[in-house]
Amino acid sequence: MTEGGDGGGIFVIEAAEAEAMARQSGITVLQLLPTLVPSAQALAWPPISRFCVGAAGLGSSGRVYLGVNLEFRGVPLNQSVHAEQFLIANAAGRGERRISHIAVSAVPCGHCRQFLQEVRHASEIQILVTSEGPRAEFQPLSKLIPHPFGPRDLLHEDCPFLMEPRDNNLVLVADAGDGNHGLAVCNGRALLEGKLRAAALEGARTAHAPYSGCPSGFAVADEEGRVYGGGYAESAAYNPSLGPVQAALIAYVAGSGRRSDRGEDGGYDKIVGAALVEAEDAVVSHEETARMLMAAVAPRCRLVVYRCRPG
Amino acid sequence: MTEGGDGGGIFVIEAAEAEAMARQSGITVLQLLPTLVPSAQALAWPPISRFCVGAAGLGSSGRVYLGVNLEFRGVPLNQSVHAEQFLIANAAGRGERRISHIAVSAVPCGHCRQFLQEVRHASEIQILVTSEGPRAEFQPLSKLIPHPFGPRDLLHEDCPFLMEPRDNNLVLVADAGDGNHGLAVCNGRALLEGKLRAAALEGARTAHAPYSGCPSGFAVADEEGRVYGGGYAESAAYNPSLGPVQAALIAYVAGSGRRSDRGEDGGYDKIVGAALVEAEDAVVSHEETARMLMAAVAPRCRLVVYRCRPG
Ligand SMILES: [Zn+2]
Ligand SMILES: [Zn+2]
Repeated sequence: MTEGGDGGGIFVIEAAEAEAMARQSGITVLQLLPTLVPSAQALAWPPISRFCVGAAGLGSSGRVYLGVNLEFRGVPLNQSVHAEQFLIANAAGRGERRISHIAVSAVPCGHCRQFLQEVRHASEIQILVTSEGPRAEFQPLSKLIPHPFGPRDLLHEDCPFLMEPRDNNLVLVADAGDGNHGLAVCNGRALLEGKLRAAALEGARTAHAPYSGCPSGFAVADEEGRVYGGGYAESAAYNPSLGPVQAALIAYVAGSGRRSDRGEDGGYDKIVGAALVEAEDAVVSHEETARMLMAAVAPRCRLVVYRCRPG
Repeated sequence: MTEGGDGGGIFVIEAAEAEAMARQSGITVLQLLPTLVPSAQALAWPPISRFCVGAAGLGSSGRVYLGVNLEFRGVPLNQSVHAEQFLIANAAGRGERRISHIAVSAVPCGHCRQFLQEVRHASEIQILVTSEGPRAEFQPLSKLIPHPFGPRDLLHEDCPFLMEPRDNNLVLVADAGDGNHGLAVCNGRALLEGKLRAAALEGARTAHAPYSGCPSGFAVADEEGRVYGGGYAESAAYNPSLGPVQAALIAYVAGSGRRSDRGEDGGYDKIVGAALVEAEDAVVSHEETARMLMAAVAPRCRLVVYRCRPG
């Protein structure tokens, strides 16, 4: 979810544009997906491994979404974002309800095969691995992870899956943050903090956190006042969950047009402000992790934490 | 790795004892494994999900190792330990070189299927899922994660896999920690800190960190001066890596004989001291995560961080 950004950027290709690109090359949109993978790989930001992963996925709207891997120098590896997670979060943040096909540069790891279970009908997602060569074909995810453990083992079937619409119905606790919340001071910083707070709250409202019951959202702002937000996306297997900070950084990378410098993480240095919204007395709190991660990638970023509760 | 503990505990069954248990029931040791799963489940510490997972695995020494899941209230879910990870770390910490068979209460999630790739000949590990009923059979891991991504995609084949012997050849940096390191003060606290430092350094020396090149180790001590240490265990897919704090907490749960209170996490409250050893200028630093996690589970624990470098 991006407010004040360019709205699209190179990480989203509109349906008409994807069709035109395919037509021009005399191929179908499905055949177009693997051809987009190398240019997606070039957009990856993995400063630790330098192992660039790119993915291109087709949404039910006809739009094509790209995904890349992100790594963060100085913090544990479990903070990393995989290209498949980036793709799903990028599509979900733009209102896409389903991804039917994904072409990806390397075979999905077990962490991603598990994360994708959060999407309804996950077993039917068609995966093509471009490193398998020109004869690579789409295969259902169920072939990569037979007998999966997933939401069906834990949730009622009426519960929304990842990418499905929801409203966690949250309101901010009045005395949250550093006190700016209630101020009517109409200066640039207060305006920006208001936008950050609203974007983080929106992330929390739409977050997928059925296992812990602790939705949360995060937003970052760059020097020019553009705000990028995202919501926490939980996994039934816990560890593959995508944190709220990662969700917002995905929105930032996808929406800002900033480039990493050959996989270096200097690309976050324009981030000057951030907001986290999470529950009071959260059994799963992201505050310390958010402080650690933002200090590592954007040391001058000012982070404000707000508490929320059911509205 | 446990110093001053009881050496075994209920998380390890000696080979002769396992054979005697099987003989008494008229079954084989392999048939014994699934019968141990329910009692392993009762030892799990999952205060968030209350979803108790238990596992029992056979080592090439003939010993049987148990594993349980651990969750930590208040911190992100990616800090959790799965039963399969517990089992492997428990066995590796006791010098076991191979696990051939694992019986587990629920089908392994993608995160675990990926983590297990770090063991040599992972595809041949035989898995039995007891929730599939009395007719459940052992099946190779390759059936649960076909076309895996793993160490073979990234490492030279001479590089030790997880559980294989190694020495990362590290020495402490002289002015590390809070200055106690060089002191000859022979009081109880200095003695305990020396033991913690040595156990954390031993964890770092034997850690599996071929992807980042940043080995690290952690150790915790209880009120009675017993010390439990462990080493970082990295995954080729990054996110499923088992952190050094988790490795030490596994050693503590397995070796201390402490019980969680029906999955509550009060069981760590006897931990009074801890030490982290990690590289200077580590591209992957666990310090902030260690502080967060120890503050969440053992608030009165005093943590000292030491830096190391190649010796
Ligand atoms: Zn992955
Ligand atoms: Zn698992």
